[in-house]
Amino acid sequence: MANPGSTQAARVMSNNRAATTQQSFAMNGGDGPHSYLNNSNLQREATDTCRTMIEEAIAQKLDVKCFSSNPLRLVDLGCSVGPNTFIAMQHIVEAVERKYLEQGLKSQMPEFQVFFNDLAANDFNTLFASLPTERRYFACGVPGSFHGRLFPESSIHFMFSSHALHWLSKVPEELLHKNSPAWNRGRIHYTSAPDAVSHAYAAQFDHDMEIFLNARAKELMVGGIIVIVMAALPDGIPASQIPSGVMFDLLGASLMDMAKAGLINEAQVDSFNLPVYAAPLEQMTDLVKRNGCFTIERMELVYRESKLVVPVSGKECGMHVRAGMEGIIAKHFGSGIIDELFDRFSNKSVEFSHQLESSQREGAQLFAALRRK
Amino acid sequence: MANPGSTQAARVMSNNRAATTQQSFAMNGGDGPHSYLNNSNLQREATDTCRTMIEEAIAQKLDVKCFSSNPLRLVDLGCSVGPNTFIAMQHIVEAVERKYLEQGLKSQMPEFQVFFNDLAANDFNTLFASLPTERRYFACGVPGSFHGRLFPESSIHFMFSSHALHWLSKVPEELLHKNSPAWNRGRIHYTSAPDAVSHAYAAQFDHDMEIFLNARAKELMVGGIIVIVMAALPDGIPASQIPSGVMFDLLGASLMDMAKAGLINEAQVDSFNLPVYAAPLEQMTDLVKRNGCFTIERMELVYRESKLVVPVSGKECGMHVRAGMEGIIAKHFGSGIIDELFDRFSNKSVEFSHQLESSQREGAQLFAALRRK
Repeated sequence: MANPGSTQAARVMSNNRAATTQQSFAMNGGDGPHSYLNNSNLQREATDTCRTMIEEAIAQKLDVKCFSSNPLRLVDLGCSVGPNTFIAMQHIVEAVERKYLEQGLKSQMPEFQVFFNDLAANDFNTLFASLPTERRYFACGVPGSFHGRLFPESSIHFMFSSHALHWLSKVPEELLHKNSPAWNRGRIHYTSAPDAVSHAYAAQFDHDMEIFLNARAKELMVGGIIVIVMAALPDGIPASQIPSGVMFDLLGASLMDMAKAGLINEAQVDSFNLPVYAAPLEQMTDLVKRNGCFTIERMELVYRESKLVVPVSGKECGMHVRAGMEGIIAKHFGSGIIDELFDRFSNKSVEFSHQLESSQREGAQLFAALRRK
Repeated sequence: MANPGSTQAARVMSNNRAATTQQSFAMNGGDGPHSYLNNSNLQREATDTCRTMIEEAIAQKLDVKCFSSNPLRLVDLGCSVGPNTFIAMQHIVEAVERKYLEQGLKSQMPEFQVFFNDLAANDFNTLFASLPTERRYFACGVPGSFHGRLFPESSIHFMFSSHALHWLSKVPEELLHKNSPAWNRGRIHYTSAPDAVSHAYAAQFDHDMEIFLNARAKELMVGGIIVIVMAALPDGIPASQIPSGVMFDLLGASLMDMAKAGLINEAQVDSFNLPVYAAPLEQMTDLVKRNGCFTIERMELVYRESKLVVPVSGKECGMHVRAGMEGIIAKHFGSGIIDELFDRFSNKSVEFSHQLESSQREGAQLFAALRRK
């Protein structure tokens, strides 16, 4: 990964290399039954929860008078294929328009340019085919990893990232060696794992966020805002008790069941790990402070609204995890195991529905609004 | 089509509607044997011919001192899926870099952002997957028709369009009515057709170019340059004797043969027309002058270099036309006829190889470098 602070590195873009190593992390494309497009309700509901907070960040913190205005450039980092990204970007455009009107700047209302970013392996064809016809912005797609530079210096006014920053740039190195204390035998995640495993994940997140923040600091104009909504680990709750923790434990157990049934090799499970991480609030706060390029305008945990505290059906749970994880699992185990795996996972979700249900009560998102100093 | 001169129209983007009506005009995607990616040598050789002229336009006409520099934004209008667009944009970036160095502006060397534009139905997934890893620019994809606005006002420094502007926004209306004098019975193009047909095509081109030039005039900064390389009709040569004319006549004849053999309906051929047009130099010059937003820095016909004046094999000819036209033909006749049609077309190309060969000698590209006033 190139150092985004270096001019030389910024001029020879490194994103494609990152994108190559991360190809399998893209959400399921197309519009079929297993697509992200048709299985992203949970993400949307969580984004709705944060909508008011995003509007407040724009109303209170985005200083439009300090921009030389036209055009106003907005970014969604990790947009996947829609429809959530279109809904979110529409809200953001409308909130900025309201701000101009409220400040008596109607005559200076800018044109908007929206950059939809995701890995090069994302299904941009589906994204472009479903762009809203009546959009009030010029649309662009930007392929590449947000763990590196994506945009020219000081060229962006507002960035948004929802349900994307829990993706690490890679599985931590320490988990790849059989003799390492972080060799994660019989598991696919740091939930319920030895400390060495969770420390390796936390260190990888620290490393990735430093690169992420440096890249965004280069790209945002002074006074520009980045709003982040991402998975979080609430204080005092073990990682195994939040929704993603329960689901990944059940997914790991389903894989181990298949290994025991001789359908896959146990060593394959040992060497497979999901490169996703739910950060505690304190870790994220420390990282932003240490980076030093941003003021923290708002940073807090958002607990899900009551409509989400309902038992999620086993099938719904399976579809949700499959839309996000099928690619990376198929790359490691082959696509032949996918249907069987998610059948087993759905059954297990029914069996452990009380744990899934109680995890919903512990679920939280981290909301952050940071301003470029 | 929205009037690009109107602010209201600019704010409610109309491109998606245009893109919907034009979906079938996209080049063949992917990287298979019939893909544009593997069948675009003719376009590349023609672009090579113009490379020196593009470099001269940048060296002599692009006034980098008048730009507030960082970043420098470049566009390829109608980029298709590569590799030609990557080669062209790389040359353009290098030519601009040389200009900065030669003018002693090394310290002000900008970052580059390249926008790859084509219709939303273009295969952007393939384009993004094959982006050069060592590129010295930030890459974006921009879905939408260039017969309308694509970018914010005054946001682009240099535009390029190669082998794309011969596409009309649609088949001229007059050709759609059975009782019209421009009803094009037994043909699929204006080559060898009555005057009413070629006049309708010419009028459609006038209309499309006015919209195109107005949109580009909004998007380019004052002093910005657009370089256009496109099919042209040399003075005194009938449209039926230039390479595309011969090929479309043979394609039309192949369809009529299939109609006579009862494989398709003759009425289907009557109602099918290719929305492509090769403009004479004089028409293009008049259009730019009448539009009034640009100075003509250079506008001339470029005759193909000798290496291209060789008999093109029937198969090569078939593959070339198929990569560009399969989509639009399949949409009208159904995809079931494609293999048979191009087999017949290849045979016909061998039969009429002397005409194809002599048409190569008449082939010409129009090269234009226009500067935004």
